[in-house]
Amino acid sequence: MSSDPLVVFTPSGKRGRFPKGTPVLTAARQLGVDLDSVCGGRGICSKCQITPSYGEFSKHGVTVADDALSEWNSVEERYDQKRGLKPGRRLGCQAQVMGDVVIDVPAESQVHKQVVRKAASARVIQMDPATRLYFVEVDEPDMHEPTGDLERLERALREQWQIEAVRADLTLLSKLQPVLRKGKFQVTVALHKSHKDNVARILEVWPGLHEGGLYGLAIDLGSTTIAAHLTDLETGEVMASSGIMNPQIRFGEDLMSRVSYAMMNPGGDREMTTAVREAINTLAEEIAKEAGIDANLIVETVFVCNPVMHHLLLGIDPVELGQAPFALATSESLSLNAPELDLTAINDRARIYVLPCIAGHVGADAAAVALSEEPGKSEDLALIVDVGTNAEILLGDKSRVLACSSPTGPAFEGAQISSGQRAAPGAIEAIRIDPVTKEPRFRVIGCDKWSDEEGFWEETSVTGITGICGSGIIEAVAELRMAGLMDASGLIGSAEQTGTPRCFPEGRTNAYLVHDASAEGGPKITVTQGDIRAIQLAKSALYAGARLLMDERGVDKVDRVVLAGAFGAHISALHAMVLGMIPDVPLEKVTSAGNAAGTGARIALCNIGARAEIEKVVRQITKVETAIEPKFQDHFVAANAIPHKTDPFPELARIAPLPNPSFNTGGDTGGEDGGRRRRRRRA
Amino acid sequence: MSSDPLVVFTPSGKRGRFPKGTPVLTAARQLGVDLDSVCGGRGICSKCQITPSYGEFSKHGVTVADDALSEWNSVEERYDQKRGLKPGRRLGCQAQVMGDVVIDVPAESQVHKQVVRKAASARVIQMDPATRLYFVEVDEPDMHEPTGDLERLERALREQWQIEAVRADLTLLSKLQPVLRKGKFQVTVALHKSHKDNVARILEVWPGLHEGGLYGLAIDLGSTTIAAHLTDLETGEVMASSGIMNPQIRFGEDLMSRVSYAMMNPGGDREMTTAVREAINTLAEEIAKEAGIDANLIVETVFVCNPVMHHLLLGIDPVELGQAPFALATSESLSLNAPELDLTAINDRARIYVLPCIAGHVGADAAAVALSEEPGKSEDLALIVDVGTNAEILLGDKSRVLACSSPTGPAFEGAQISSGQRAAPGAIEAIRIDPVTKEPRFRVIGCDKWSDEEGFWEETSVTGITGICGSGIIEAVAELRMAGLMDASGLIGSAEQTGTPRCFPEGRTNAYLVHDASAEGGPKITVTQGDIRAIQLAKSALYAGARLLMDERGVDKVDRVVLAGAFGAHISALHAMVLGMIPDVPLEKVTSAGNAAGTGARIALCNIGARAEIEKVVRQITKVETAIEPKFQDHFVAANAIPHKTDPFPELARIAPLPNPSFNTGGDTGGEDGGRRRRRRRA
Repeated sequence: MSSDPLVVFTPSGKRGRFPKGTPVLTAARQLGVDLDSVCGGRGICSKCQITPSYGEFSKHGVTVADDALSEWNSVEERYDQKRGLKPGRRLGCQAQVMGDVVIDVPAESQVHKQVVRKAASARVIQMDPATRLYFVEVDEPDMHEPTGDLERLERALREQWQIEAVRADLTLLSKLQPVLRKGKFQVTVALHKSHKDNVARILEVWPGLHEGGLYGLAIDLGSTTIAAHLTDLETGEVMASSGIMNPQIRFGEDLMSRVSYAMMNPGGDREMTTAVREAINTLAEEIAKEAGIDANLIVETVFVCNPVMHHLLLGIDPVELGQAPFALATSESLSLNAPELDLTAINDRARIYVLPCIAGHVGADAAAVALSEEPGKSEDLALIVDVGTNAEILLGDKSRVLACSSPTGPAFEGAQISSGQRAAPGAIEAIRIDPVTKEPRFRVIGCDKWSDEEGFWEETSVTGITGICGSGIIEAVAELRMAGLMDASGLIGSAEQTGTPRCFPEGRTNAYLVHDASAEGGPKITVTQGDIRAIQLAKSALYAGARLLMDERGVDKVDRVVLAGAFGAHISALHAMVLGMIPDVPLEKVTSAGNAAGTGARIALCNIGARAEIEKVVRQITKVETAIEPKFQDHFVAANAIPHKTDPFPELARIAPLPNPSFNTGGDTGGEDGGRRRRRRRA
Repeated sequence: MSSDPLVVFTPSGKRGRFPKGTPVLTAARQLGVDLDSVCGGRGICSKCQITPSYGEFSKHGVTVADDALSEWNSVEERYDQKRGLKPGRRLGCQAQVMGDVVIDVPAESQVHKQVVRKAASARVIQMDPATRLYFVEVDEPDMHEPTGDLERLERALREQWQIEAVRADLTLLSKLQPVLRKGKFQVTVALHKSHKDNVARILEVWPGLHEGGLYGLAIDLGSTTIAAHLTDLETGEVMASSGIMNPQIRFGEDLMSRVSYAMMNPGGDREMTTAVREAINTLAEEIAKEAGIDANLIVETVFVCNPVMHHLLLGIDPVELGQAPFALATSESLSLNAPELDLTAINDRARIYVLPCIAGHVGADAAAVALSEEPGKSEDLALIVDVGTNAEILLGDKSRVLACSSPTGPAFEGAQISSGQRAAPGAIEAIRIDPVTKEPRFRVIGCDKWSDEEGFWEETSVTGITGICGSGIIEAVAELRMAGLMDASGLIGSAEQTGTPRCFPEGRTNAYLVHDASAEGGPKITVTQGDIRAIQLAKSALYAGARLLMDERGVDKVDRVVLAGAFGAHISALHAMVLGMIPDVPLEKVTSAGNAAGTGARIALCNIGARAEIEKVVRQITKVETAIEPKFQDHFVAANAIPHKTDPFPELARIAPLPNPSFNTGGDTGGEDGGRRRRRRRA
C-alpha cells in the first residue's frame, strides 16, 4: 500500500500527507496554511481559490500528475458560470487531493495578505483585521428544545468556526430574527474580535452569503484638518481618501485657543465636541458616497489625534491639558461603540478604536507615527519628526525610544506669515534663488513647471500666484541664506548690502520680493523680516525638542532623520538642514514618511495585532516633557541662528553682521523665549 | 516570650493570633471575617464598627482583659463627636489588638449581612450586591511620569482594594477629572462587578467619602402592572415599593393582542417599547421621590417579566412569540447599560440585569420564581404556581425541576367577570355563603371588617361596594359549591332548587345576587353562569398545566403547593382546592409565597451569586410546552368540573343534575376547549 499523497503549498512551503479525497481547504487548515474562507467550505463564497501546478517541481521534489486533484465538480462549474473563475483556478473546498500536488495560494485568497503601502516607505501592512465575515448555518428553533435564536447562532459559530464568547448588542438582537428567517437560517455575520478581552461581537448580520464587502475608516483627526481613508477590510485596499476642515476652527485656530474657549464658556467643550462629531459624520457620508458603498458597511473606525482633539472627540473637557501638569483623563487606548461618539453615519454597532496617548502633550497621533515608523525596531538611531502646528518628535532604536512634543506654532503651515497661505493651488511650494543674480524661480501647487520654464505662466493663469505655503517659506528662508541675502542671525540685507533691488526696506528692516503680481491684480509676494523671525521660532522649537531627546539619550548626533506629517512629505531635506530644523545628517539619510500618523491609523485598522503592539510600545516609550526642562530653553535660544559652523555652504558667511545694534538678535531672543514660554503651554 | 494575642470573632467563630498592635480590621481581613469597610481603614467611613467583649468567655475559652484593645483614639473621638458611635462600639480600623479578645461584628458591619424578607417565607437574602462603594486615594498627576487620571485611579483600586480589570464609560471619563480635583484626589467610586466576565465597571465617582447611599430597583414588569422595589444596596432594605399601570394596555389588554398589534402596525413594536420604557422612567422618578433619594443614586436595575414583555422592553419585535415554534430572540440573561433601554431617570451608567427566560412561553418571571422558591433545593416535591393572566407552573425537587406556562386568561384577576374589577378599594375580596341560610357575607378592600360586623357599612360608605376582584370571585364560586347552590358541572340552581331568592334567572341560566347596592346608586353585584364558566376555564387551564408536569414527572400527587404572584397571596387555599385550581394536598401544605417573581428580582439585585445561580438553574429546568401536548387537552377537559369525588364536603352533592339537557356541560366543554385552543397560542 502506497503512502498518502503529499501536498505542498506555495508560497508558504508548508507540506503534509493527506488521505485521498481530502479537500484542499481541509489540508490547508490542518497545516495552518493561510487560505481564506467565509462560507466554511460550502462552495459559495469562492474565497478559497487555489491554483494547482502540474508537472515536475524540483524545488519541492514533487512530480504532479494531471489527476492529482479530483475532477472539476458541479459546484465549481456553477460558480464559474455564475461569477467566473480565472483559468487554472479551483475552489479549495471542492478540489480533493488525489495524488502528490503543489498548490499555490494566490494573494487574494490569503487572509493575512500583505498590502503594499503607497507611501515612500517600503513597509507593507499585513492584513489581520479585527472584523471578519463568517457564514453559518443556524439550527432552526425547536419547541421541544427551546433556545433563543441568538444562542443557536452562537452555537453555530462555536461549532462551525470555533468562536467562543460571542456578544450581540440589543440593536443587533432586534434585527436578528427577521434576518435569520429571510436567510432560511443561513446568515453571514461580521464578527469583531477584541484584542483586549477576546470577546467576539456580532456587528452585523445578513441573510445568506454577504458579498457586499466590509469597510473601515482610518481617521487622522488634526487640529485643522480631518483626514479619512476608507479601507476595504478584506483586501486592505484604500477605496477613497478624503479630508474636511475641522469645524472647531471657529472656536479657535490653535489648540490652546480651544482650551481657552472651553474654560471661558460653560458648555464650550460640549459645543466643540458636537461640532467635530458632526464633521466626522459628514466626512464618513461623503467618503462612502465617493467610493460608492453603503455607509452601513463601515463597521470599524480608528482614530489618531493629539491630546486636545482626543479629549474633545471623546467629550472630555480639555481644560487640564491647558495647564501643568497637563493631566490626561485617560492615556490608554479606547475601544468604543459608534453611538458613544454619536457617529450615526456609519453602522450602528461599528467599533471605534482610539490609539493610546503617550503623554499630555504627545498624543495618539505620535503613537500612530511610532506604529508606522517603528523606531523601536530600528537598528540605527532614528529621529522621527512629525511636523505640524505642534511637532511630535521620536528618537530611538531597538534599545530605547524617547518622545516629546514641541510647540512649533503654525508658521510651518504658512500661517502667521505675511504672504503665507495654506497648501492649495496657486501657492508657492518650492523656490530657488540664484546665488549670483539673486533672482528667484519657483513652483506653485497645481503646476509641474518651474516659473522659468516655458508654459508656466499660461498654466498658472487660472489660479494665479496667490501666496507661499509652508514648504515654500522654509525653502525661501533657506535659499535667502544660501544666496547670501541673509546673515546667520536671520537679518535680511539691504539692497546695497546684497546688490539686488529685490531686497527693499520695510519698516526698520528689509524684505525680499519673491513675485509682484499686482500688475495682474494679484498680491505682492514677499518674505519679510517678521516671516523669518516666525520661521526661526518654529525651527528653533523643533530643533530644541530634537536636541533635548538627544541629550536624554546621551548622543550628539543621529543616524537618520524621518520627516513625517502630510507637510513632511513636501519639505526639502536640504533646505530643512540649511535652516537648522533638524540635526545634521548626510542628506541621503533624510527620508519622508508621508502622513505617518494616517498610516499608523491604517495599520491599526487592518491589523488587530498592531493594536496590542502599539499599546505595549507606548508604555515603553520614555516621555520627555519640554515644558519643564530648562535645557529646552537653552537649546531653543542656541538654535535661533541659521547654522553657521556646521554650514555645508561656507560662502554664505560672507555677509558681515549689520552695523546697527538694534538689529542684533540678542534682544529679540529674550522676547522670543518669552513668546515661546507662553505658547509652550498650549502645546 | 508569650505568644501573640488570640482574637476570636463572633458570630463567625473565626479565630487567630496576631502581633500586638494589629488593627482589628486587618485581623478580620486576614481571617476572612466579613467586616465591611468603604474607606479602606482610614477611619472615615465607620463601616467597620465592632463591639469588643470583656470578661470571661467559656465558649471561646478566652479571658478578655480591659486593655485587650488599644485605647480609644483621636480618630474615634472625632468620629464619635461628629456622627456618634453606639456605646461599646469601636472602629475596627483604629482599635488595635493588645491582648486576647472576643470581638463581635454587628450585622450592620457585615458586607454579606442577611436581610429577612417581609414575605411569609422564612428565607433570607444574603447581601452580596454586584455594586459596592470603594474609597481610594489617587496619586496626583506627575509631569515626569505622565499617566491618565483614569489609569491612576485604576492603580489605586488595584493597590488599595486588589481590584483588577477596571473599566469606565466615556460619560464617567468626562466627569472624572473635576471630581478627582474637587476631592483632592480622594474619591469614592461605585464599582459594579460582573458575574460573567469579572470586569469591574466604575458606575459613579464622588469627591471624598460618599455617604449618600447606593440604590437599586427590582422591577417586576407585568402585562398589566409594573411593580418596583427601591432597595438599599448596602443594607438590602426596601426603601419604597411602587407600581404603575403598564401603558401598553392601550395597545391590547393581553399579550397576544399586543403581538397582533405589532404584526398589524409597522413600527407598532417600537411604539410599545417606547411606552413601557417611558413608564419605567416615570416609576423610577416617583419611587425615588417617595423614598426621598436622588434618582442618580440608582445604579442597578433588575428586570423580571414574561417573554413578550421581555422582548418589548428590549426593543425586539415579539412577532415570533405569537406563533409556533415560539422562538425567543435570546433566552440568556442580559447585562446592559441604562441608556440601551432609554432609562434616563436613573444613573446614566446604571447597569441593567434581565433574568434569563426559560422558554418561549416561560419567561424571566418564572425564572425569578425559581430563584425565590428554589424548587430545585426542595426535599419534597413542590408545585409552585404563579397565578396571573398567564400562570407559570414549576414542579420539582432536588432531583429535577419541570416548568410550563398555562393560559389561564384574565378571569383570576377579575377581568371578563360580570361584576369583576381590579383589586382596589371597594372590591369584594373575600366572601362566605352560609350553607343554611344561603346568605352571603363579605369583606371589601380598604376595610378590615366583614359585612356582618358592626361598623362595616359606615367604614365602606366612602368607597362603596363596587365589584368583585380576583380572589373574591374564586371564593364566591367555591362558596356557591360549598353552600349547595351549584352542582359539580358548575350550574347554579334556580330559586326553587336552592330555596333562596338570591338565585334568580338570568337568560337561560341562573345567577346569584351577592349584594344589591342599586338603592345607593351602586351596582348590583352578582355571580352569573358566565362568570362561573370563565373561572372554570381558568382553573382548568391551571390544573391541566400542573397535571401535565406531574405526568412528565410520573407522579399523581405532590407533597406541597406554593401559590405565588401578588394575587396568590390573597387566594384562600381552601377555596382554591374546592374549586380544583390545584391538586389536592393537605391544607397546611398550601403556602403563599407572595410576589415570588418580585422577590426573585430583589434577590438577583442584592446578590451577585444569585445571578450565576439562576442562569445555571434555568439551563437545568425541563421545559414542557403545553401548546403541543395532547395530554394537556385531556387534562383540561377533565378538569372542567368542580371536584366531586375528592370533595372534602360531600353534602355539596345534594343538588340533583338539572333536567334540561341544554344546561348539560358536555356541549360547552367543546366550545371551551376551542376557546382554550385559540387562547393558548397567546400565552
